[in-house]
Amino acid sequence: MSAPPLYGGIEAGGTKWVCAIADADGKVLATRVIPTTTPETTITAAVRFFRDHRTLAAVGVGSFGPVDLRTGSPTYGHITATPKPGWSGTDVVSPLRAALRVPVGLDTDVNAAALGEWRRGAGRGLGTVAYMTVGTGIGVGAVVNGRPLHGLLHPEFGHVRIPHDRTRDPFAGSCPFHGDCLEGLASGEAMRRRWGQRAEDLDDPAAWELEAEYVAHAVMNLTYALSPERIIVGGGVTRRAGLMGRTRARAFDLAAGYPEISALTDRAAMDEYVVSPSLGDHAGITGAVELAMRCFA
Amino acid sequence: MSAPPLYGGIEAGGTKWVCAIADADGKVLATRVIPTTTPETTITAAVRFFRDHRTLAAVGVGSFGPVDLRTGSPTYGHITATPKPGWSGTDVVSPLRAALRVPVGLDTDVNAAALGEWRRGAGRGLGTVAYMTVGTGIGVGAVVNGRPLHGLLHPEFGHVRIPHDRTRDPFAGSCPFHGDCLEGLASGEAMRRRWGQRAEDLDDPAAWELEAEYVAHAVMNLTYALSPERIIVGGGVTRRAGLMGRTRARAFDLAAGYPEISALTDRAAMDEYVVSPSLGDHAGITGAVELAMRCFA
Repeated sequence: MSAPPLYGGIEAGGTKWVCAIADADGKVLATRVIPTTTPETTITAAVRFFRDHRTLAAVGVGSFGPVDLRTGSPTYGHITATPKPGWSGTDVVSPLRAALRVPVGLDTDVNAAALGEWRRGAGRGLGTVAYMTVGTGIGVGAVVNGRPLHGLLHPEFGHVRIPHDRTRDPFAGSCPFHGDCLEGLASGEAMRRRWGQRAEDLDDPAAWELEAEYVAHAVMNLTYALSPERIIVGGGVTRRAGLMGRTRARAFDLAAGYPEISALTDRAAMDEYVVSPSLGDHAGITGAVELAMRCFA
Repeated sequence: MSAPPLYGGIEAGGTKWVCAIADADGKVLATRVIPTTTPETTITAAVRFFRDHRTLAAVGVGSFGPVDLRTGSPTYGHITATPKPGWSGTDVVSPLRAALRVPVGLDTDVNAAALGEWRRGAGRGLGTVAYMTVGTGIGVGAVVNGRPLHGLLHPEFGHVRIPHDRTRDPFAGSCPFHGDCLEGLASGEAMRRRWGQRAEDLDDPAAWELEAEYVAHAVMNLTYALSPERIIVGGGVTRRAGLMGRTRARAFDLAAGYPEISALTDRAAMDEYVVSPSLGDHAGITGAVELAMRCFA
């Protein structure tokens, strides 16, 4: 009798690649963390980890980006222009497929996290769910009717423009493309540059009040754009005590009761609408494993 | 032999209801325009039109909103809080179903227009398409993987916040809920209140420059939020000569080449990305008929 199939997942980040092997129920059996160095070294190390598992059926990758997800595109599976040195134009799919001889599923890191939370976390049972991470950068992934959201490319919600009150916040913004887009105003990198210290070291209440204002704008713009049934907000910056509460309170005010739906008219329902990831740091890798399983769906 | 089935569509607007009968190929055989008065009078007039057609198989409604689209909700098919006098809480689905004894499909007016353009117009053959109307108000509908986008309720993209430079534009905004949200700054109603005359009568180049700036912000926020493969922009305000061209040029600048995808890096590709409806004023009714057909999908 042959051994049951196993599924591989890679949370391919700009700092580290988290690799995992899971069984058909999604139970993680082994993990390895690989520092992100050059593409060749990193991918080779991942291949070495998965090679130990003979019954591997498929691998799923949730990748930092932007990444070309358009099946049929000549650069499908390539990371496109990224500030990460050495990685622009890297094909992350073909080398894995060639070395491991299994199907490779791919999506963005944030779509994978959204998928993970939708499948096994705070989005379970819902149709449309958004996952926002506020860390060094800001990204949003979404699952719509059970499928990650793609299109022209994939959502790049970190780059939406939101109101920027230059009197209250004269900082010009940190985005190399757009200056004061959402990421340029509210990411960990923006906080570091505005306040001269890392977000985790920052205790000025005004700094966190401003951060809640921007994240609340992000939550409401996401609500009005996508109408998700739940918004899951993760990432290092959001671990600051009090930030999620302040964000919900401010988002509730910004909504001004419109449209008339309980999440926007009932303060307690808002607490259930904007939530932290229930998988914690495991949303991305859980979604990556799910991407592997979907190679056979 | 029985006659082939016919499908009814209603573009249920705040000013008028456009009713149509189409065959299974979507060819419109008859139409009637009913002024929107009280719910009872309007719905009764629509029923009378459809009753003439004995082989009616289903009716689809693209309705003004907000409207409750959550199947299973006790207020499914009801228009929720609307500024339209007499219409808050109106059930638009049950009376049609009871009188005509056929299934009734329902979506928002803008989701119906998006569906119409996706099925038979500028969105044909694409997976994810957004339709934005800039008229008295601003609304966005979207088709994602062939299905209209729903969730918490439905997109209310007119209410996203965009940058508002109060030095250049001291107008506080016309939205009764949010003041200077997108609709509050860029709708026909906002233009009328800011400039003291109706958009169609307005010839000040500065007014149209500002309008293009706001619509371009809408286009780019929609791009970064939803990543549609095409954005179709209709509505009375956008008929002004030159506005679409200025909007595309400004959106291209705002994108600043990010992400690296032809619509955002090649000015000619942007012209194919942001387009006028190819069904003109018929997008909504075409989508409403499609909603009727989908009752059997």
